[in-house]
Amino acid sequence: MRNHRGQRSLEILALFLPEIKELLEKKDFPQLKDFLKKVPSLDLAEGFKSLSLTEKILVFKLLSAQKAIELFENLRFEEQSLLLNNLANEEVSQVLNEMSADQRVKLFKDLPQRVVKRLFGMMRKEEVEDVRRLLSYREGTAGAFMTTDFIELKKELTAKNAILRLQEGRKAGQAQQDIYSVYVTDDEHRLTGTLSLQELLLAAPDMPIRDLMSPAELIKITHDMPREEVAKWFSKYDLLDVPVVDEADRLLGIITIDDIVDVIQQEATEDIAKMAGTKAEDIAARSTFRIARLRLPWLITTLIGELVVSVIIKHYEFTLSKIVALASFLPLIAAMGGNVGAQSATIVVRSLATGHIQQKDMARTVFKEFRVGVLLGVCYGIVLAVMAFSLYGDRFELFFPIVVGLGMCTSMIVASTAGAAEPFVLSRFGVDPATATGPLITTTTDLVSTSAYLVLATWILL
Amino acid sequence: MRNHRGQRSLEILALFLPEIKELLEKKDFPQLKDFLKKVPSLDLAEGFKSLSLTEKILVFKLLSAQKAIELFENLRFEEQSLLLNNLANEEVSQVLNEMSADQRVKLFKDLPQRVVKRLFGMMRKEEVEDVRRLLSYREGTAGAFMTTDFIELKKELTAKNAILRLQEGRKAGQAQQDIYSVYVTDDEHRLTGTLSLQELLLAAPDMPIRDLMSPAELIKITHDMPREEVAKWFSKYDLLDVPVVDEADRLLGIITIDDIVDVIQQEATEDIAKMAGTKAEDIAARSTFRIARLRLPWLITTLIGELVVSVIIKHYEFTLSKIVALASFLPLIAAMGGNVGAQSATIVVRSLATGHIQQKDMARTVFKEFRVGVLLGVCYGIVLAVMAFSLYGDRFELFFPIVVGLGMCTSMIVASTAGAAEPFVLSRFGVDPATATGPLITTTTDLVSTSAYLVLATWILL
Repeated sequence: MRNHRGQRSLEILALFLPEIKELLEKKDFPQLKDFLKKVPSLDLAEGFKSLSLTEKILVFKLLSAQKAIELFENLRFEEQSLLLNNLANEEVSQVLNEMSADQRVKLFKDLPQRVVKRLFGMMRKEEVEDVRRLLSYREGTAGAFMTTDFIELKKELTAKNAILRLQEGRKAGQAQQDIYSVYVTDDEHRLTGTLSLQELLLAAPDMPIRDLMSPAELIKITHDMPREEVAKWFSKYDLLDVPVVDEADRLLGIITIDDIVDVIQQEATEDIAKMAGTKAEDIAARSTFRIARLRLPWLITTLIGELVVSVIIKHYEFTLSKIVALASFLPLIAAMGGNVGAQSATIVVRSLATGHIQQKDMARTVFKEFRVGVLLGVCYGIVLAVMAFSLYGDRFELFFPIVVGLGMCTSMIVASTAGAAEPFVLSRFGVDPATATGPLITTTTDLVSTSAYLVLATWILL
Repeated sequence: MRNHRGQRSLEILALFLPEIKELLEKKDFPQLKDFLKKVPSLDLAEGFKSLSLTEKILVFKLLSAQKAIELFENLRFEEQSLLLNNLANEEVSQVLNEMSADQRVKLFKDLPQRVVKRLFGMMRKEEVEDVRRLLSYREGTAGAFMTTDFIELKKELTAKNAILRLQEGRKAGQAQQDIYSVYVTDDEHRLTGTLSLQELLLAAPDMPIRDLMSPAELIKITHDMPREEVAKWFSKYDLLDVPVVDEADRLLGIITIDDIVDVIQQEATEDIAKMAGTKAEDIAARSTFRIARLRLPWLITTLIGELVVSVIIKHYEFTLSKIVALASFLPLIAAMGGNVGAQSATIVVRSLATGHIQQKDMARTVFKEFRVGVLLGVCYGIVLAVMAFSLYGDRFELFFPIVVGLGMCTSMIVASTAGAAEPFVLSRFGVDPATATGPLITTTTDLVSTSAYLVLATWILL
């Protein structure tokens, strides 16, 4: 959960930076302080990188406490560390104590142990506890990206008193974040219900929370739910926030929609990267060696698979030496098979990821893709036979085009069937189905189509 | 915007359907009516498909008016049409008049003209106008997926009176949807400000809206903004809803976060499908012929490209007939080049889609991918030369492994450079960069790597 929703138009972005720079140069700090009040903190965070270190610290110190925290939350990790190393202890302590719990734990996750220790020394004890607790959840689960900034109420309160409680909380500096719902707990902090702000606002003032809330059995998730599952849940039920509980039903934190939007984007990026045989980190990586290392594993798999293809071709060297023309269609047949296989695999992988099909739909899906493969294989087989005849018709008998056409047809049928089956099989063995597309399917297809083509040729032509 | 957030746990899903079926069989309608009150409408929509037509109509008629509308909104198009054809006119008219504006326009978009005409006859005039207006926006723009269900207030109202207005609206049957913000307009319906529910709830009762609202220059979008842009906007600024205005700043509708979550999913699906050389419709398509037709265009491109490869190989037939062993590494070199190219292209396409890089970063990005290609090409070139030596070392001189290694190296360098450049070039010509990955890059790579390999072989070995 980030502080206040950024509300601005794209044009503003370019306008404020020159003015800030000018006021910094003129050292007109009172006016700069005034001007900074008007700049949204999200835009300030975006322009921050073009300031020098001294300018950054100056600007930071001129901001109101609330705005300084908002700015800090929206900076990138590198700039956050820079500020933490260059601000006075009391400023660091204020920022770390007041920033939102999930942004803070994200920051601490990446800091070196030595720095963490030093910063913990400047923070309030209960905030240190909060960071420690959040850091203990396993990466990729609901617990690891929830926030502990939520509003907890007792069910005996009336709507009016609940609203008063929220207003007092704001005055006391709490509740700077967006609130979508309030959470009703019993004396052991067990979740008993939730209530959206809208229903609270529209309720009769003396109605007790008990009669307004939705019962909690319906909506909670446990801290160990994988984040993809959480995202599916939000997307299916149009939720704004969801409470996270432990095994004993105690309220641990909440997850809000803005974080889910990020998760959905990241999950898609990860799938896309995996489909091409690399990792999502590839996008942000700068070092050539690092990128090469991310892409290496699937290239090795391809290399090994294709070396087997080489050995198969070597095995049929005699056939090839008799009819060298066969070689000229090898890449074509492999490529067409590879493409058809990648299409089938990609569609199946994406359908599984979005929940459009499940593991139980395997037989139906593979049969569907088999039919598509037959249709495409027969069409393209005929086309290719005609092409082979027109390229080499003067030299070989009719059997040559038939071998080429049959090779194409077999390759496409096998490729689309295997492409559809691979994601199901991988996911049954606990491997992410997205790895099935790209390198793995191209290599499988090359293997199968080359063998089929050369075996057919040896049978029919020799 | 859909009606009320679904709040439930996954286990419930399986439990209610047998009970509904049983009560239907027993014809115990009073008890069924009672039971249906407890079933969340989202779950009812999910289980609806396993009921017979008569059962569907029975269940529908037993629901409260509000719940019937909620259920209807969450049904798939086929079932919506079925109900529209089988319910009494007054029931149809109630559903169509009361359902949310964006759900309704989605339904009308797919209905045949003849049915639309008949249904318009049953609806209130202003609702017909609303559907007509929403249908007039171009597909894929903000206007085409906004909703016209929003709360409009005047700036002179106090916070307390604004809340009273919302409460009256609910009683009058308005505002059944989730509300995140209220919108402040002048007498010409021009947007002057927005105010979140949270701020309204926490405000002092006699504060005028004027002093509470955020000014409207900062947050509106125009109806022609492409939906990908709208999604980026939401994701960057953590918005819950955004007002859509016309050229004269008049408030036309709003877009809410739940629709954006769907847009982000769909955009990712479209990109992924395009990367494999098919379309997003492929996922939902059932007919073999339809699927084959969706996948055809890129297969034809591949076929044409690969036929050129065949002709090139035919051109070097003399080289191949001298050293048939060359053929055994053809698929390997093409496949490795294809994979490296697909990796580069995929990373660039996704980085462009998520806004991580822009068109202006072309030179830097292509040079980075070139460096990765050199590193990988040199490594794998050496590995392959060693392999070639160990497979064929007894037969050929040292030049053979060198040709194979150089072929591999060239192929990988050209593939990663071309793979990085293609998305930029395509997008400069107004083509979606996602088309660059998959079939296009594999074919380009096959062409280049086969030519390079055979030219090198002819030069060095003959």
